[in-house]
Amino acid sequence: MSIQIETSFAFQAEQPTDVLLQFEAAMIPEQYVAKVNTTLSDSPHIARVAAQDGIGERMWVRAEGRFDVHYTATVEVNRLLTEVAPLKQLDPHDLPGETIKYLFDSRYCPAGRLQSFAQEEFGDLRGGERMMAMHDWIASHFRYVPGSSGPTTTAEDSFIERRGICRDYAHVMVTLARASGVPARFVSCFAPGVTPPDFHAVAEVFLEDTTTPGGGAWYLLDATEMAKPGEIVKIGVGRDAADVSFMTSFGLTDFMEKTVNVSAS
Amino acid sequence: MSIQIETSFAFQAEQPTDVLLQFEAAMIPEQYVAKVNTTLSDSPHIARVAAQDGIGERMWVRAEGRFDVHYTATVEVNRLLTEVAPLKQLDPHDLPGETIKYLFDSRYCPAGRLQSFAQEEFGDLRGGERMMAMHDWIASHFRYVPGSSGPTTTAEDSFIERRGICRDYAHVMVTLARASGVPARFVSCFAPGVTPPDFHAVAEVFLEDTTTPGGGAWYLLDATEMAKPGEIVKIGVGRDAADVSFMTSFGLTDFMEKTVNVSAS
Amino acid sequence: MSIQIETSFAFQAEQPTDVLLQFEAAMIPEQYVAKVNTTLSDSPHIARVAAQDGIGERMWVRAEGRFDVHYTATVEVNRLLTEVAPLKQLDPHDLPGETIKYLFDSRYCPAGRLQSFAQEEFGDLRGGERMMAMHDWIASHFRYVPGSSGPTTTAEDSFIERRGICRDYAHVMVTLARASGVPARFVSCFAPGVTPPDFHAVAEVFLEDTTTPGGGAWYLLDATEMAKPGEIVKIGVGRDAADVSFMTSFGLTDFMEKTVNVSAS
Amino acid sequence: MSIQIETSFAFQAEQPTDVLLQFEAAMIPEQYVAKVNTTLSDSPHIARVAAQDGIGERMWVRAEGRFDVHYTATVEVNRLLTEVAPLKQLDPHDLPGETIKYLFDSRYCPAGRLQSFAQEEFGDLRGGERMMAMHDWIASHFRYVPGSSGPTTTAEDSFIERRGICRDYAHVMVTLARASGVPARFVSCFAPGVTPPDFHAVAEVFLEDTTTPGGGAWYLLDATEMAKPGEIVKIGVGRDAADVSFMTSFGLTDFMEKTVNVSAS
Repeated sequence: MSIQIETSFAFQAEQPTDVLLQFEAAMIPEQYVAKVNTTLSDSPHIARVAAQDGIGERMWVRAEGRFDVHYTATVEVNRLLTEVAPLKQLDPHDLPGETIKYLFDSRYCPAGRLQSFAQEEFGDLRGGERMMAMHDWIASHFRYVPGSSGPTTTAEDSFIERRGICRDYAHVMVTLARASGVPARFVSCFAPGVTPPDFHAVAEVFLEDTTTPGGGAWYLLDATEMAKPGEIVKIGVGRDAADVSFMTSFGLTDFMEKTVNVSAS
Repeated sequence: MSIQIETSFAFQAEQPTDVLLQFEAAMIPEQYVAKVNTTLSDSPHIARVAAQDGIGERMWVRAEGRFDVHYTATVEVNRLLTEVAPLKQLDPHDLPGETIKYLFDSRYCPAGRLQSFAQEEFGDLRGGERMMAMHDWIASHFRYVPGSSGPTTTAEDSFIERRGICRDYAHVMVTLARASGVPARFVSCFAPGVTPPDFHAVAEVFLEDTTTPGGGAWYLLDATEMAKPGEIVKIGVGRDAADVSFMTSFGLTDFMEKTVNVSAS
Repeated sequence: MSIQIETSFAFQAEQPTDVLLQFEAAMIPEQYVAKVNTTLSDSPHIARVAAQDGIGERMWVRAEGRFDVHYTATVEVNRLLTEVAPLKQLDPHDLPGETIKYLFDSRYCPAGRLQSFAQEEFGDLRGGERMMAMHDWIASHFRYVPGSSGPTTTAEDSFIERRGICRDYAHVMVTLARASGVPARFVSCFAPGVTPPDFHAVAEVFLEDTTTPGGGAWYLLDATEMAKPGEIVKIGVGRDAADVSFMTSFGLTDFMEKTVNVSAS
Repeated sequence: MSIQIETSFAFQAEQPTDVLLQFEAAMIPEQYVAKVNTTLSDSPHIARVAAQDGIGERMWVRAEGRFDVHYTATVEVNRLLTEVAPLKQLDPHDLPGETIKYLFDSRYCPAGRLQSFAQEEFGDLRGGERMMAMHDWIASHFRYVPGSSGPTTTAEDSFIERRGICRDYAHVMVTLARASGVPARFVSCFAPGVTPPDFHAVAEVFLEDTTTPGGGAWYLLDATEMAKPGEIVKIGVGRDAADVSFMTSFGLTDFMEKTVNVSAS
């Protein structure tokens, strides 16, 4: 599956301001970045640093005045597509060390708080079956309402209000998975079919890898049901949205405009 | 400085239960673990996994019935002791990639929430001077009150209530540092002088390393003023207490007893 | 229905401390207090003041050292028992002025937060039918777990955790009713059948009074299903538990013991 | 002091929607409403109901399409002006029953949460002196920043962020007063000198009335320092902003415009 991506955004800083950007398709085995062009306004410094779990890069820029970002890429997604429901959950002591942090509470995903509900509602299920039941529960109980949530909305808030955007759906999915002892992370991504078109976010859970005895792998879950795992282009991963914002400003900036276009062919 | 450590704790699980432990002095250059003995109750599985930032290890055990942990160690601390106040803050684009996650909000350290206060109260200061002013502000405005906080108390809660234990002091310090653009992490540790004797927690901030041009290093700060940086034995680090609990149970356990003794010679 | 009540409790204050008590059966038409005895430790001052909505009284005492309260009463409940489901909701402009405050958010009942869920889950229903559907939803989705909540647990917390005690069930019921435009208040009470025996709390909602054209009345709802409306003896009412604690101390006190016995004959 | 008031606001409802309004100068002894004109769009129902503590009125209207409110009044303020600092605090048992609810936590004023800080910072002071110290502390530590808070911002939030608008200043003042055992309520009002011109909000605390032996009275405190007690025209009072919004909509409305002009002569 070949995915075409085009995004532009711009912001303005009156004072020289450091801004951290993360908006490019990660160059990782499961997705081959065939063509890519990144154009930025001039900046006295540009520093690229590896992002979390080695997936994608972050970029520091120093902006003064208007700063424009333009990015195009063609990405071949060749991720193995596996049905999640039949997959077993790994015993905790079989989890690789680097997945353990994804069991813990994070800023927007306080898993401890939803433990009682998770047990009550999904107590009979384990592993992939439980993950799919959670996915389906969110999909059927939540409404996708752009503007109904903000940058500090937590999975708790979303669980109470039963509505939100992709970020909120992913937070609730991540929180419920962790509350079940399944490592879960937040994935910022591009995907065709997102309405209105924008950066997208989904959850990823760590279950057995049936191709490797005793091993585990990450599986994508999108409770908004807007993106298909075979068409998702990962930008970066983190514990929650706090880790993978496409733009984090360390000083005052005015955000000006953004367009995102993603298509599959 | 040689530190002698002895700790015992025990818990009980009716069902076979996976428990994650992290209670041993980390074997890292700044502290040399000279003698060590770890004794555990029998467990069908024990798995050691590297902990966060490669500092220390976590250990999975499966407990059924009473489970006892006994640990003794002698540790030589040979960390360089540097006065923090004169140190410069690194420009964001000079920060190593692996420190960036310590700028972001975490479960118990929502830095964005204290940004306005940090700017108001410490706006004129930068770098080590600002870190020390924050340290002093906490030390003089907070009361150390065992029992006044719990496992889900956040830095926000502590900031409002102006009291807590080591964990809470460290959370507020970490949060204020991040709200100033300084990477900050939470350190669980052993230290002599902690009253009442217990596991301890302090903050660590990332500022310039005057011995390496352009480089940075982590510096310990204990706003409770109970532990001296030269006597602190690190167990592990994380974004906040959610990452470095000495014991995380994935199922129902009854905690039974704990003793911690630390002395310097 | 005749209800026999006996309760004793005691607390200790090292310094002279003002304490507000509200633990007696209210003397109101719907329940006739036939026999009553209130015995208190000596206090330099005792002041009785009318409680909220004129239902019951509060009592100020000044305690020093051990303070004992002993109360017995026999109460005839002669409240009209009405099936709630068929009752209509009053139009807002037909609500009596004194009920309007019970539409607003209060400390533990932030109705605005559950509006989206209330609309999603109960959007097709109105009036008594909606109240009963909410009652049944709570009764079937929550678990009664003494010790699972505390004095600052909100309806939001309980909604997330799906468990609690009578206070929490009542808070969620009150919050959902208000989120539907139905005035709802919190009732502290005595009732036989409460397990373990203790002071009890239920919700009360304001719907049409079929005996008075255009009028409205308060109807009791207990989502714990432990108390029958015909056997509930009201102590006091308020916006939520913040208003009708049986004991509020304005200074440091140690609570020592409490027994509550309620039986019907 | 004669105060001239003029306010207009408008909103739009697609469906017939019940809206509760409270925007008129209260007709109470301390302020004489000399001239008044209230003009409303047509509504199938208008119902006036007494507001909290008998201060002012609320008005139900049913809006469909655009709904306009226009109000002008001339009010003579003849409230006694008393210096607050020398006033004594009443002993709890001397408080009138109807003031007791103003000691308790409310939606936006969780007094229990600021008790530790209040004790730490103002522990040596009592009564009017303490109230004025709190007023001065807020005035000097907070910044007035329109847009920095919203309709669900609590006193806790404002205390953390140290900024807000009149509503937030009043909430923090009310919360700190209650945390000191002084009944405190929230007052919505008109006042000249408010910048930008808008409805205003202040706190009111209950202390001794030196003109009545054993009695108490309410005293206005405006920590924004924009309004003088002798020029404040009360609209209504409540436990916090949840009780005295100038407009509460029970259904979907679009707010369109608002102007408020207040001058003194």
